[in-house]
Amino acid sequence: MFPELHLFGTEPAGLEIRNDRLRASAVPLDGDLIAALGAIARRAGVWLLPGSICERGSAGELFNTAVVFSPQGDLVASYRKIFPWRPYEPHEPGDRFVVFDAPGIGRFGLSICYDAWFPEVTRHLAWLGAEVVLNIVKTTTPDRVQEVVLAQANSIVNQTFTVSVNCAGPVGEGRSLLVDPEGTILATSTDAAPTVLVRTLELDHVTRVRQHGTAGTNRMWEQFLPTDAPLDLPLYSGRIDPNRWTPSPVPTPLETES
Amino acid sequence: MFPELHLFGTEPAGLEIRNDRLRASAVPLDGDLIAALGAIARRAGVWLLPGSICERGSAGELFNTAVVFSPQGDLVASYRKIFPWRPYEPHEPGDRFVVFDAPGIGRFGLSICYDAWFPEVTRHLAWLGAEVVLNIVKTTTPDRVQEVVLAQANSIVNQTFTVSVNCAGPVGEGRSLLVDPEGTILATSTDAAPTVLVRTLELDHVTRVRQHGTAGTNRMWEQFLPTDAPLDLPLYSGRIDPNRWTPSPVPTPLETES
Repeated sequence: MFPELHLFGTEPAGLEIRNDRLRASAVPLDGDLIAALGAIARRAGVWLLPGSICERGSAGELFNTAVVFSPQGDLVASYRKIFPWRPYEPHEPGDRFVVFDAPGIGRFGLSICYDAWFPEVTRHLAWLGAEVVLNIVKTTTPDRVQEVVLAQANSIVNQTFTVSVNCAGPVGEGRSLLVDPEGTILATSTDAAPTVLVRTLELDHVTRVRQHGTAGTNRMWEQFLPTDAPLDLPLYSGRIDPNRWTPSPVPTPLETES
Repeated sequence: MFPELHLFGTEPAGLEIRNDRLRASAVPLDGDLIAALGAIARRAGVWLLPGSICERGSAGELFNTAVVFSPQGDLVASYRKIFPWRPYEPHEPGDRFVVFDAPGIGRFGLSICYDAWFPEVTRHLAWLGAEVVLNIVKTTTPDRVQEVVLAQANSIVNQTFTVSVNCAGPVGEGRSLLVDPEGTILATSTDAAPTVLVRTLELDHVTRVRQHGTAGTNRMWEQFLPTDAPLDLPLYSGRIDPNRWTPSPVPTPLETES
């Protein structure tokens, strides 16, 4: 797992020059770059999230798109950043939340950088069944301080792991993080020095914390009673329907194999 | 501003006994307790949020209700906790978000304890124009650690102040907080000792951070372009409509006086 736009340039230049280069470097999802990245995953026999790419859509649109490859080299998921970092970023917004299953391992949700500042994104990824949210980041500004808090909070309110991988110095602010479903930081780089974080995430922690509660008490996904009325959410012209307040189940390893 | 259920008992007893006592102590919003609290605010000439009360609704329901009195002694706002701390708490959920104006000062939103674990609440209070979210708390469990993170995160993503007042020891875990719109903790009690926090909150910080950005960069309430499509939020059977993504304006002191 690498940071946002990891393969798409970090040269010091003015904003317009950088954005022109991004536009010029955009590629489709069925082109040579995707094939080459898939070949790398296959040869190494690993799951690969090589950051996001600058994607050229079929109608000429420009997207900031995370791509995920299986150990067989297949492109198993792609996610177009819903909240581009405006007004600085030239990409158009994506229109849907994306999760994918690593069979026998678990379900993962994709988010990119500024998406973490909009709690609606992680909420939906968790509701779609993500046990781990993979948040790739290119934060070069002082607000990495806030993002450390948000990585913890997004984990806490959704009871999911968060893996927030920011680019290192001299371009980025670093401070990549692994956060558990109760908001505890399991591992972090303390500064912008290039580093590799390696930890085994025990995904049963998600199941356990939802059964027994955060800090042994709080089960937010078990909040509602059958007699509760829906809660109107006027900002969204929508509501919380108690009958829908359940994360999608993730296939167990046994179900995956059968 | 006092903690959740501040006037409603903290005796050590089993859960059922405590809940029976809460039920027995419930009062309506037009009764003697409210009149007495209003008289205290008027005599002292202060805004008063005396914690929440155990409210008996007109149909016999039981609510955990925050009440706010003006310096004239009027009950200017009441808010029924939307997310009671289940399965421990006997109250029924409220059905609406509540903000109130302190004329010439600003707009305040009300939330109670566990509401802070559901980001939908603070999001709506900010959208309704709250510059300060008053979160009254009775946390007696080890999860005050998580709540400190959530107070910061709720401030960051909504660019609002958070005042999170928890009850002190020996019953509560303390650690009350004042957080600014960029997530910085302005003041806190570091343990459960009884204390009074006093700070002047400069509410123009909310306007400034929304104009110039969190950490000088991020303007989440200015995210959308007129050409953006609505973003479907299937969990809520709703959407983010770019045309509605604006906090309600708060009357300026001049408008308030005129």
